[in-house]
Amino acid sequence: MIDKLIAEKAVRINDIVESYLPPADGFNRTVCEAMAYSVEAGGKRLRPMLMEETYRLFGGKSEVIKPFMAAIEMIHTYSLIHDDLPALDNDDYRRGRKTSHVVFGEAMAILAGDALLNYAYETACKAFGMGEDIHAVASAMCVLAQKPGINGMIGGQVVDVEMTGKELSKEQLEYVYENKTGALIEASMMIGAILAGADEAKVAAVHKIASDVGMAFQIQDDILDVCGDSALLGKPTLSDEENGKVTYVTIHGIDESRRYVTELSERAVRELEEIGGDNEFLKELVIWLINRDK
Amino acid sequence: MIDKLIAEKAVRINDIVESYLPPADGFNRTVCEAMAYSVEAGGKRLRPMLMEETYRLFGGKSEVIKPFMAAIEMIHTYSLIHDDLPALDNDDYRRGRKTSHVVFGEAMAILAGDALLNYAYETACKAFGMGEDIHAVASAMCVLAQKPGINGMIGGQVVDVEMTGKELSKEQLEYVYENKTGALIEASMMIGAILAGADEAKVAAVHKIASDVGMAFQIQDDILDVCGDSALLGKPTLSDEENGKVTYVTIHGIDESRRYVTELSERAVRELEEIGGDNEFLKELVIWLINRDK
Repeated sequence: MIDKLIAEKAVRINDIVESYLPPADGFNRTVCEAMAYSVEAGGKRLRPMLMEETYRLFGGKSEVIKPFMAAIEMIHTYSLIHDDLPALDNDDYRRGRKTSHVVFGEAMAILAGDALLNYAYETACKAFGMGEDIHAVASAMCVLAQKPGINGMIGGQVVDVEMTGKELSKEQLEYVYENKTGALIEASMMIGAILAGADEAKVAAVHKIASDVGMAFQIQDDILDVCGDSALLGKPTLSDEENGKVTYVTIHGIDESRRYVTELSERAVRELEEIGGDNEFLKELVIWLINRDK
Repeated sequence: MIDKLIAEKAVRINDIVESYLPPADGFNRTVCEAMAYSVEAGGKRLRPMLMEETYRLFGGKSEVIKPFMAAIEMIHTYSLIHDDLPALDNDDYRRGRKTSHVVFGEAMAILAGDALLNYAYETACKAFGMGEDIHAVASAMCVLAQKPGINGMIGGQVVDVEMTGKELSKEQLEYVYENKTGALIEASMMIGAILAGADEAKVAAVHKIASDVGMAFQIQDDILDVCGDSALLGKPTLSDEENGKVTYVTIHGIDESRRYVTELSERAVRELEEIGGDNEFLKELVIWLINRDK
């Protein structure tokens, strides 16, 4: 049931995100095509979904959320394009599709990533012209600029890259999870709350919930890599072990990892209930995300 | 005289830009060091200089310009780091200094470029908290997001990369010049005008002036490559010819190029005078930029 609902919402979100992509009809055609190629490659659209559902939780009803939904997905996509580059993970396939540098060449993939990051801000700026509370839009913009950056996603990515093939400490691993995975989930939910006019205390509460969700989401990823069904996952399992990768599971063991995911999950749901508001789907989405089998 | 004044102003601008760089003291230390390495590599600081002087022309007097000055230089620097990468221009040296990927490796150079682009927006967002007119800051943010992007700098860069080794048409060459070089100069001057509270007509006038300045600046670069003094320039001349590069000079000839630079220069200065205001240095800076011998 929840799977079907998530899939339906993802289709609607695809339309929103794609409606903000630039037309590929000028001298810059190739980069626009490369941007669209990667954005349209699919994915769960979790970040814009969490953003929109948090926005609704706080009673948000306007279109102002849409450019931010598109922007967060563009930032997520740029990070995947650059992550897949030969100098980084050197992945030729993602979700069964050739990666950007395989299709467009390395130079264009670098530029397409740059272009998506930049265009995310250009897209979010459209929200300034929508007649909504300009202070809320400005606050949302600040979160959109901060969380993907050096004290957020890029910070986590840097440590991940530097420590490839080395022993990550517990603290470093936590830093990578909090930032590489967690930061964009935090940005998504915080922006939803901010744009709906939530006060500072509520935004802080959402921040904490999102942080738990991000951490649990990533640890569940590690658990699935060990215990998941590769047919359901659509990718091979045991890849972390094969790559000699330090994960939460290799450090803390499978039982402790499961226990911690449950703890984070219960806390996130409890705090979501404490916030109040009316969005049963968001609660179910959070539970699904954390306890998913794919 | 003007040379000395420009050099003095550049020193002050260096301090401003560097004051906005992040501290390199956390797990993300390496990327912060890589960001600083490239920002501190020097350069004329023309973009923040043009921004600040245009801000003064319209009577701007507050600190709000500073985060934007830092941001535009970060964006310029990121574009150089990515431009120098092996997959793009493959340059090991810039201004006599090893480029980012040579010092930090290719993966970190890609991330440092991403980080600078992202941090530019994070830095500019600090202007929202400075108590100035929030509508002006939002407008400035929109220009900062638009001009470096696919319909600006990246667009020009894409065509430049795609056409390497091929015959550029006149229209393509103009597109590259307008965007790869011109767009950030336009952003700089427009943001200065917007933050100082200039009205729409004045911002449009500044846009046009900046477009002329950018075009003349780039054509002068081509002229210097043919006729300049390599000792003054600090780089070898005739590199365009050697690389079989199509430039304004190779298409239109040296006499027409000089004539056009003079036309653009005279028009820019005349329009700057028509705007009024009081900034003799900005006028001299524009003349120097366009007619420079280095």
